[in-house]
Amino acid sequence: MENNRPLILVTNDDGYSSKGITELITMAQRIGDVVVVAPDAAQSGKSHAITFSNYIRVKTITDEPNLKVYSVTGTPVDCVKMAINRLLDRQPDLLLSGINHGTNSTVCTIYSGTLGAATEGAMNGIPSVGVSLCSFDLDADFSIVVKYTEPILKRLLATNTDKNLCLNINFPDVCEADFRGIKICRQANGVWKERFIEYRDPWDRPFYWLSGDLVNYEPDAPDTDEWALAHGYASIVPINLDSTDYVRLKKIDYLL
Amino acid sequence: MENNRPLILVTNDDGYSSKGITELITMAQRIGDVVVVAPDAAQSGKSHAITFSNYIRVKTITDEPNLKVYSVTGTPVDCVKMAINRLLDRQPDLLLSGINHGTNSTVCTIYSGTLGAATEGAMNGIPSVGVSLCSFDLDADFSIVVKYTEPILKRLLATNTDKNLCLNINFPDVCEADFRGIKICRQANGVWKERFIEYRDPWDRPFYWLSGDLVNYEPDAPDTDEWALAHGYASIVPINLDSTDYVRLKKIDYLL
Repeated sequence: MENNRPLILVTNDDGYSSKGITELITMAQRIGDVVVVAPDAAQSGKSHAITFSNYIRVKTITDEPNLKVYSVTGTPVDCVKMAINRLLDRQPDLLLSGINHGTNSTVCTIYSGTLGAATEGAMNGIPSVGVSLCSFDLDADFSIVVKYTEPILKRLLATNTDKNLCLNINFPDVCEADFRGIKICRQANGVWKERFIEYRDPWDRPFYWLSGDLVNYEPDAPDTDEWALAHGYASIVPINLDSTDYVRLKKIDYLL
Repeated sequence: MENNRPLILVTNDDGYSSKGITELITMAQRIGDVVVVAPDAAQSGKSHAITFSNYIRVKTITDEPNLKVYSVTGTPVDCVKMAINRLLDRQPDLLLSGINHGTNSTVCTIYSGTLGAATEGAMNGIPSVGVSLCSFDLDADFSIVVKYTEPILKRLLATNTDKNLCLNINFPDVCEADFRGIKICRQANGVWKERFIEYRDPWDRPFYWLSGDLVNYEPDAPDTDEWALAHGYASIVPINLDSTDYVRLKKIDYLL
């Protein structure tokens, strides 16, 4: 590796061979040297989960001078830990997670493996960016994501000094003519309303599959990520690593 | 079920038959009617992960008038979703998660399945409390946890009107003579420093097992959970459901 170029760690939660990460790798290679450490299979919804009740295997997929690709039999956060602790010979300058096939917005970002990986990077002092497109299409068109994210990442690498910065960027699934630009936002308040669909196995025993829909509690709040995405904007939300609720902290004395 | 008693949903991440949840169930039965929906096996480190790439099964373990126990083949968050969506006939008044065998403190609470379940409850409008003891002993003595948590829960049920309240309570592993009381705290800043131990399988192929230690970046900060626990206090940290970083939100315009 040439050590004068930025080192960019790339991961995701859709698996190392998905289209989204392939597009992200191509973009990252224009900016720096790239090491990919990504799950060997889909790991959506894994949040910040780690694997310590089972072992992990690592497989070298690509070993070229400016691109190394490893697959890991674990969660997105496991991938980041494995990269930092065993696979990289120096601290990355940037972590990119994505491009996720599907939206990661509102407070329900908490379920996201894409953002789990980005948060893990930022906790370890690597400025980290999760990138998602609001389309679950396996062959989605990521061109506006790449076009508008690349200059942000270059500015970040050139000027950011905040080692714990974690950004969540989402792009709407629109053509360029309908794309209205990028907004810095807060997470909308909302919840996933689930239903468990009941099936019967061949022995007539029930099993369940989780499904559901996002309910946005504040669809008319223009400072939120969901509003931005619904109106043709990309959203950037900075993510907090400290989950202390400082407002409630001052209000719960009465419980003691 | 008698509907005039509070309904308490109990879950954990160590599995429905662990000692910690058994002690929590006994305490909860003194306060209200209890429904337990907990993992069928250990689910530590599962954070806020959900299962939607695989099916889930539910098994009825106990079906008595004032105590129902179900096991679920999923994560702690899956258990809460399954409880709310299929197993409960009304909204619980309180969710309890634990008593966890092991500490859930600092910003590394993000990895915790115990707190994942509590956060999920609060996101769904159920005041929720995660309870942990700083001991990994499978036969740990939970008596001070029960003694000091029960009055807090009774006050919470009697007076709290905040449906999205989420509390993380940890108790130090000390005898009662050394217990110094309860402190409301913020999360200490810290990180898990990992090592992956390398093994060789019978075919000489490497595999890895995640291990590590907590590094507390601010051991001398008396307003943090880690300081409280290290000095013989129990800690209560209110948990934020919105992970927007409102400080950085005002500082990242330069990236656009």
